[in-house]
Amino acid sequence: MGKIYRQNYRIPFYETDVNHQVKLPHLLSVALQVSGQQSLSLGVSDEDIFDQYHLVWVITEYDVQIERMPRYGEDIIIETEADSYNRLFCYRYFRIFDQEGNQLLSIFCHFVLIDFDTRKVAQVPDDLVAPYEATKIKKLIRGQKYRDLQEAKETFYHVRYFDLDMNGHVNNGKYLEWMYDVLDIDFLRQHSPKSIHLKYVKEIHYGGDIYSRVEQEGVISRHDITSNGELNAQAIIEWEKKDV
Amino acid sequence: MGKIYRQNYRIPFYETDVNHQVKLPHLLSVALQVSGQQSLSLGVSDEDIFDQYHLVWVITEYDVQIERMPRYGEDIIIETEADSYNRLFCYRYFRIFDQEGNQLLSIFCHFVLIDFDTRKVAQVPDDLVAPYEATKIKKLIRGQKYRDLQEAKETFYHVRYFDLDMNGHVNNGKYLEWMYDVLDIDFLRQHSPKSIHLKYVKEIHYGGDIYSRVEQEGVISRHDITSNGELNAQAIIEWEKKDV
Repeated sequence: MGKIYRQNYRIPFYETDVNHQVKLPHLLSVALQVSGQQSLSLGVSDEDIFDQYHLVWVITEYDVQIERMPRYGEDIIIETEADSYNRLFCYRYFRIFDQEGNQLLSIFCHFVLIDFDTRKVAQVPDDLVAPYEATKIKKLIRGQKYRDLQEAKETFYHVRYFDLDMNGHVNNGKYLEWMYDVLDIDFLRQHSPKSIHLKYVKEIHYGGDIYSRVEQEGVISRHDITSNGELNAQAIIEWEKKDV
Repeated sequence: MGKIYRQNYRIPFYETDVNHQVKLPHLLSVALQVSGQQSLSLGVSDEDIFDQYHLVWVITEYDVQIERMPRYGEDIIIETEADSYNRLFCYRYFRIFDQEGNQLLSIFCHFVLIDFDTRKVAQVPDDLVAPYEATKIKKLIRGQKYRDLQEAKETFYHVRYFDLDMNGHVNNGKYLEWMYDVLDIDFLRQHSPKSIHLKYVKEIHYGGDIYSRVEQEGVISRHDITSNGELNAQAIIEWEKKDV
């Protein structure tokens, strides 16, 4: 239980997909922006913690539960809550509501703080997270387990200039774009994601090439992203047939 | 001279590039959204003209003059004005200002109205554009001339699922992403665009592959996008060395 912060958002045309729903990578980016606004409002902005601690926030895992994806032009409310933390991880909820107050998505995230230069995970300083009023816990919350892909279909992607953020790293949302893109478009037109588990293992840098691999069984798709023979990210997506 | 419409916008982290400047394709998308808001406020929204006339707006040309690119977190004002129109084209300005009122960008666009099904250009109905109070003119405004590329470097791209908009067409902004992406990253880190002329010739559809070709001479880069041996878009970008 921590402080709650909310922001309104309208789904723009240019971030809407062929199903007239918001593109999920975009929604995750906007949610992250909202937590950045909360940090700013509490006096612990990304700039502040970089200046004071030389640390930056990095997401390591997403657990997304979807009731309904927001639609083009829809006004939504994005709520965030820094729920709890232990020695190494901070856990945060995002909840997305429609205008009637119905919950559309719940997004649970694991964050770590890493040293900007060494990219090594740092211990969470109590004073840094105090303003969020999150609960300090002892245990590590276990994320989703991912098994190795067996007979995966593999597609090659080159990391592009506009995939990079301000810090020269591949934007979090891109991984999910590569994962969606290897699925059949007719399947994507007929299905909507119901739950997504996504784990970031290793950062991807510019100039590299990546493989997006997928193994699909009915409405479950298992994904990974690899580069230079190393694992960068893993995901399991459960889909459901859309009502037409 | 037409009615003026303004909207404030803050540059988000996830649309900022390695130079800490807004990604230009994103800025063009947001500008377009602002003209959509103006249309809505005047009772001639995209939905209205689709329902009443079965027409949709399509951009055919951009002429972008850049004083300074907006930066991460900067609050800008996006102003738009439907300037003039003739039998086939509508001409619209976007002007982007900083908080002190300095003009950062001027974007001049040529629009046409096309029939949604046949994709053929329609004549501009006077009553449809009347609410904007744009000046009716006789002459066609000549756009930039583009010569054929001579010894172009060519890079192959596959059209991706998330490149598509709600109507299943490749988003306008993607063309510019493909054009930027073929330039050297060190060049992009050291230069900022000063002017951009961009012409859309033919729509690109999903499943196709495209080539982004470039010919660079100093601070001038000439681009085209082709698919199946046909020309889809052309551009000339003038760059300038960044002050560091």
